[in-house]
Amino acid sequence: MMYSPLLIVAAAILQHFTPCAAVINGTQTDLYRQRAQSLLEQMTWKEKIGQLGGYRRLLEADATFNRTRFDELYPTQNGNLGYGSAFNWASDVVPIANRIKQRQIDESRLHIPFVTVTDSNNGIYISGGTIFPSNLGMAASFNLPLFEQAIAVIREEQRAIGVNWVLSPPLDVTSEPRYGRIGEDFGEDAYLVGEFGKTYVLTMEEKGEGGFVKVATTMKHYVYGETSGGVNLASQYGGINHIYNDQLRPYIKVIEEAKPLSIMASYSSVDRLPMHKNRYMFQDILRQKLGFEGLIMTDANGIWQMHNQMYAASSLQDAAVQAVHAGIEMELCPPSEPTVCGMPTLLNAINGSAVLQRDIDQAVLAFLEIKFRTGLFDQSLPDPQKLNSTLRLPQSLEIAREMSREAIAMLQNDGLLPKTPGRVALIGPFGNILNSGSYAAVNSSDARYGDSLHRSMKNAFGSGKVSFTQGCDFIDTDDDSGIQDAVAAAKDAGFAVVALGSLSVSPSDPLFLKRTDGEFFAHADLGFPGLQQQLLDAVLDVGVPTVLVVSGGQPFVLNPSAMRANAIFHTFLSGEFTGDAVVELITGKVNPSGKLTVSMPQYSGAIPIAYDLLPSDQGYDQAGLTANNISAAWQFPNLTRSVPMPFGYGLSYTTFKFSNPTVSSNNQTSCITVNVSLNNTGDVFGKEVVQVYYRPIYTPDIEFPVKSLVRFEKVGLEPGQSQDVHFVIARRELGYWVNTELTSPPGPYTFWIGSSSRVEDLHAVNVTLPMWTA
Amino acid sequence: MMYSPLLIVAAAILQHFTPCAAVINGTQTDLYRQRAQSLLEQMTWKEKIGQLGGYRRLLEADATFNRTRFDELYPTQNGNLGYGSAFNWASDVVPIANRIKQRQIDESRLHIPFVTVTDSNNGIYISGGTIFPSNLGMAASFNLPLFEQAIAVIREEQRAIGVNWVLSPPLDVTSEPRYGRIGEDFGEDAYLVGEFGKTYVLTMEEKGEGGFVKVATTMKHYVYGETSGGVNLASQYGGINHIYNDQLRPYIKVIEEAKPLSIMASYSSVDRLPMHKNRYMFQDILRQKLGFEGLIMTDANGIWQMHNQMYAASSLQDAAVQAVHAGIEMELCPPSEPTVCGMPTLLNAINGSAVLQRDIDQAVLAFLEIKFRTGLFDQSLPDPQKLNSTLRLPQSLEIAREMSREAIAMLQNDGLLPKTPGRVALIGPFGNILNSGSYAAVNSSDARYGDSLHRSMKNAFGSGKVSFTQGCDFIDTDDDSGIQDAVAAAKDAGFAVVALGSLSVSPSDPLFLKRTDGEFFAHADLGFPGLQQQLLDAVLDVGVPTVLVVSGGQPFVLNPSAMRANAIFHTFLSGEFTGDAVVELITGKVNPSGKLTVSMPQYSGAIPIAYDLLPSDQGYDQAGLTANNISAAWQFPNLTRSVPMPFGYGLSYTTFKFSNPTVSSNNQTSCITVNVSLNNTGDVFGKEVVQVYYRPIYTPDIEFPVKSLVRFEKVGLEPGQSQDVHFVIARRELGYWVNTELTSPPGPYTFWIGSSSRVEDLHAVNVTLPMWTA
Repeated sequence: MMYSPLLIVAAAILQHFTPCAAVINGTQTDLYRQRAQSLLEQMTWKEKIGQLGGYRRLLEADATFNRTRFDELYPTQNGNLGYGSAFNWASDVVPIANRIKQRQIDESRLHIPFVTVTDSNNGIYISGGTIFPSNLGMAASFNLPLFEQAIAVIREEQRAIGVNWVLSPPLDVTSEPRYGRIGEDFGEDAYLVGEFGKTYVLTMEEKGEGGFVKVATTMKHYVYGETSGGVNLASQYGGINHIYNDQLRPYIKVIEEAKPLSIMASYSSVDRLPMHKNRYMFQDILRQKLGFEGLIMTDANGIWQMHNQMYAASSLQDAAVQAVHAGIEMELCPPSEPTVCGMPTLLNAINGSAVLQRDIDQAVLAFLEIKFRTGLFDQSLPDPQKLNSTLRLPQSLEIAREMSREAIAMLQNDGLLPKTPGRVALIGPFGNILNSGSYAAVNSSDARYGDSLHRSMKNAFGSGKVSFTQGCDFIDTDDDSGIQDAVAAAKDAGFAVVALGSLSVSPSDPLFLKRTDGEFFAHADLGFPGLQQQLLDAVLDVGVPTVLVVSGGQPFVLNPSAMRANAIFHTFLSGEFTGDAVVELITGKVNPSGKLTVSMPQYSGAIPIAYDLLPSDQGYDQAGLTANNISAAWQFPNLTRSVPMPFGYGLSYTTFKFSNPTVSSNNQTSCITVNVSLNNTGDVFGKEVVQVYYRPIYTPDIEFPVKSLVRFEKVGLEPGQSQDVHFVIARRELGYWVNTELTSPPGPYTFWIGSSSRVEDLHAVNVTLPMWTA
Repeated sequence: MMYSPLLIVAAAILQHFTPCAAVINGTQTDLYRQRAQSLLEQMTWKEKIGQLGGYRRLLEADATFNRTRFDELYPTQNGNLGYGSAFNWASDVVPIANRIKQRQIDESRLHIPFVTVTDSNNGIYISGGTIFPSNLGMAASFNLPLFEQAIAVIREEQRAIGVNWVLSPPLDVTSEPRYGRIGEDFGEDAYLVGEFGKTYVLTMEEKGEGGFVKVATTMKHYVYGETSGGVNLASQYGGINHIYNDQLRPYIKVIEEAKPLSIMASYSSVDRLPMHKNRYMFQDILRQKLGFEGLIMTDANGIWQMHNQMYAASSLQDAAVQAVHAGIEMELCPPSEPTVCGMPTLLNAINGSAVLQRDIDQAVLAFLEIKFRTGLFDQSLPDPQKLNSTLRLPQSLEIAREMSREAIAMLQNDGLLPKTPGRVALIGPFGNILNSGSYAAVNSSDARYGDSLHRSMKNAFGSGKVSFTQGCDFIDTDDDSGIQDAVAAAKDAGFAVVALGSLSVSPSDPLFLKRTDGEFFAHADLGFPGLQQQLLDAVLDVGVPTVLVVSGGQPFVLNPSAMRANAIFHTFLSGEFTGDAVVELITGKVNPSGKLTVSMPQYSGAIPIAYDLLPSDQGYDQAGLTANNISAAWQFPNLTRSVPMPFGYGLSYTTFKFSNPTVSSNNQTSCITVNVSLNNTGDVFGKEVVQVYYRPIYTPDIEFPVKSLVRFEKVGLEPGQSQDVHFVIARRELGYWVNTELTSPPGPYTFWIGSSSRVEDLHAVNVTLPMWTA
């Protein structure tokens, strides 16, 4: 039953998006589907059910394999095979995984291979790979070509360990700052999320030898990001205009322009209907309206949760039946609790309705198709001996290092920086660990996973020049005894770097119990956990030059006291080279170029504050569209929705001048052309992110955001150097959805071109656009 | 063209709701409509347009009439006539208003009378009437019969001043604690809001002599209450299941059971579509699905706002055309800015489309019909000489006093109270003013409008026993010099009452610039404004017995320091007898019986916390439905969505025992019967609110709240006395809406009976209900 790869390659054409041309949905080859169909016809009910589940964590934390448990689950859950805990080393995992996989191919009745489906956030999800910044950091680079290089590295490292399917990219638009998983996401703007998501999918799903998809991707979480109270797993309000314009936009782009192979349901219920049984959102919207042809999977526990947490199914089997009927085609099994798996409960439903049998056949077909597309039936398992020639190559590390540099945003600088301090007091609990996110295979305390800021500083300045004082612990503690030591150290050195933040580490991490960020978290308080603010205040009271370095996959409230710091950096969760990069940025060896992709709130209760709010959300100030976007939305205390540090904001050591912004419209091609000249008017090389926002001045139907990002490009310029930056925008990209239909009204539009979403950083250009039909 | 009132009275039958019987929509008489139609046929385009607007504030603050401005607006805005500023006295306003009205009847071409449409929150909206608690306070009484008496008083006072149409009841379900207008609303539970709204409409719209509606009512704001960020005027997410189950439920009840004559559009956009042009929500939902037959009006500035604030109409005329096409039938004009009125811009659209002409005819018809229904064509104007025999009658004041007593909730009492202190130090900026809400005709500093707590205490305890120390100002100030005086006063007296809060007063109030609550406000910080917390902390540090009395139309964060108070009362905005009532409650002359209708948050960022959250909103704790509703939803800091002081919570000086709760279902009548025995097991007379909540244990479709209120009744018992409390619930009342259709699944249900929405205050009873079809 083996087809020649040569037959397959011819049809494997990825549809890239051509600006200002209609998107043509090419006919995908159905050879893979034919092979899957042929296989399906030979399968028993039990074999079908078995494909839909799997074994999620092959190895225990100590790298042992629990054969008894594997054998217990195998008969009903044998479609996918996950690896071990994040701290298992690739060199331990891959040989064992290969043996299990090979036996499956050799000995199972139909020889259907396992597929390894795994998380892929900062890199591979077992130890031994290159550790990139998390997505929030990578997005802060606003550097898509660099991101593409990073994802290509991750892709090859995943393939080397036998991963053919990853649970990324996340397309959650994170306009709820309290949500704990923002660090895994790209940010609050749907266009930006779509661009990073598209780049991710196109890079990861590149066709390799034989035309096989190198690594299948999974858009997630359909749909999520703005849950009630920011609470993890909580419900979201629906409203189809909101869903389309705020949350589906990245999916629409990625489906149209990159055709990813799978999608994951979110834990949320949307307009009260749990997503895992939301037939409307899967069939009517995702399949019919958006044309998605890939596989739909659960999130871990998603079926169980409908019964046990939402009480919206009367049993686990009821939940499973509803899920597959809605369109779920594969269950992502939780790591260690087989009793929460829904698909195996369908085993005794073999005599169930014809609808169920049809649903299951469709699911198995979709799943097998991905196994064919990724070459599992046709290619051999990866050679464990070749791990060393793929993982952590020097060029890969260099890409990660460059990404860390660009993933950090400078939020304040009164002129203190750049500076190479004579002596420096490093202070704060984030000074001597690596904070990389809950899906990074990083032991935050172990130097093998990357340098802390303390180690990087010692390397750069010399051990004798750097003191480190933790000052206080990460979280709840009454012990402020270290604060006076920190004050003394700052006085002594005459220059302080205070490293604060919110800990987001893997469940395997020794500091796990002290974490306050990442999956499972929601932040009612967006300040610094524990006594960290008190520590910062005490150091700032000393009055020596102080740099604040904040860390965490979230926005923080920087209160007036914190703003006394001479300079402030947000490092998000910036991977193994975070420490080195911070040193380079402080000293000016590298000029900061990162920009926020989530706006920074002024107060924990003064949210939401995503920059692309609707005009009515500004409260009483109507000046937002024409003059200054600042308005007092919360009248007590007087706080704005257009915050001082919004999306797109970030500082540099040089200055850039934007000049001659123009916008023109070509009626024939429905193309809008935006031009601007960018000049580095400062003294050092720097990179600037040219950002283009727009809105129709008046909309005839629904409200449109005060402004919306439509293009960005990162440009590097030497001092005195100029460059014309040129954007071509298809009219459809200016559209928005009213009752699921794309519309773009004629009439006057404003485009804003500049360096952030702040009105004072933008140049407005008005243009009148003609009638247009989708 | 005068019809005999005798012809009209026969058809005037109000449909009251009969539990467990189908709601029959009676055929309304169309005599009024026939008369309106007949009049409409004689009207010119200009006369029609003129009817749709009006003159909102007849008198200036100094009680003068600006004839020039009136004459300027009159030709295009002559349908309704508002009165003066809140502080004009009724005795000044009514004679002038009568003259204008009589001239209109006598001299205008068609003799169409003005109608006075006005706010009616705590009472009449000019000075001289009885001042009741605002709606949040009245709802806290949970006492519908008492509320009915209060509204009957307000109704007669409104009629005495010539008001035939009020801009109440508000049906906003206020599950967003930051929203600044909560004080005007009934609270966070849709059932409770519906019950108060229904009682309001049935009482206000009672038929009087000649069968005329005494005072027409206006449900508002369709729909509103949960705006983005709690910000006034901001957008809301839609989702039809959310809208129906969370926000439309009160409207559905009130329309079905009380048939109010009008409804007001909200300022919000719902799912991005501005409500003032939301044809879907007006025609498809309100008219077709909900069967509303009354008039639809704007909120003040609502048309203007679509163009100037939402940028969702290209001109004021465009906005007006869209509004009338959506179904708007009358424009509520702003007080003083004629240029923001939309309807007059239609004057030059006489040659507009047939659709516009039809829309305008429908609007004028609906408006004239209300004028006929309320007897304006058939009854004489009120006699100003009779004001004294209607306003502020002793029996009216007694009802207001009783309402104030029941409108205050005791939230904490460690046993200190009841107590008549020997000497008392009254401390805090709310000790010597009346805080009654932004729509109350109350000068907060003027004793003619009611006693402050200070004056009430002096009356009760004797002047020599009571000291008053303001301690600090209401809002932003650095002046903490008064705090030491307060500390000294507390020490000296040995008993402190600290009165703190958030000021909500009329725009005419001398303290207006110090307000932090009411319309125009949204609270990013739910703590006490200014230095009030610091004042409280300092007094509590003294260690003398301390009673905290909080004031304001909002929930507050009571932090751990505040919780050190021996006793805590929330007085909301409880009208002119607030001070007297607080004294009676402290001393035990009256036993507290108010209950929260808005849950109290633990932290400003830990919201929303309405008690009827969805199961998934609880985060990871699944015990919510069966054991204890407390779960850590915000993992940092660890805070719950099921807060310690939720909806329905409030303490008493006696104890009540609930016993023998039973729930039974009668399949034939689709009736559910709930019985419980209530026993006053304490030493003093007290009133308890018996509360019944329920949920289907599993829902087959959408998520259902963890629990939902379905009945309440306030019962007064002497010590040792018992009473069986009996509820009959129609099955349809257990239903919820899925895609606009009512459903109530068969299967196991849990009912909870008890004294608050806290699990520990409830007795659970399970019952299995049969199939049911709407």
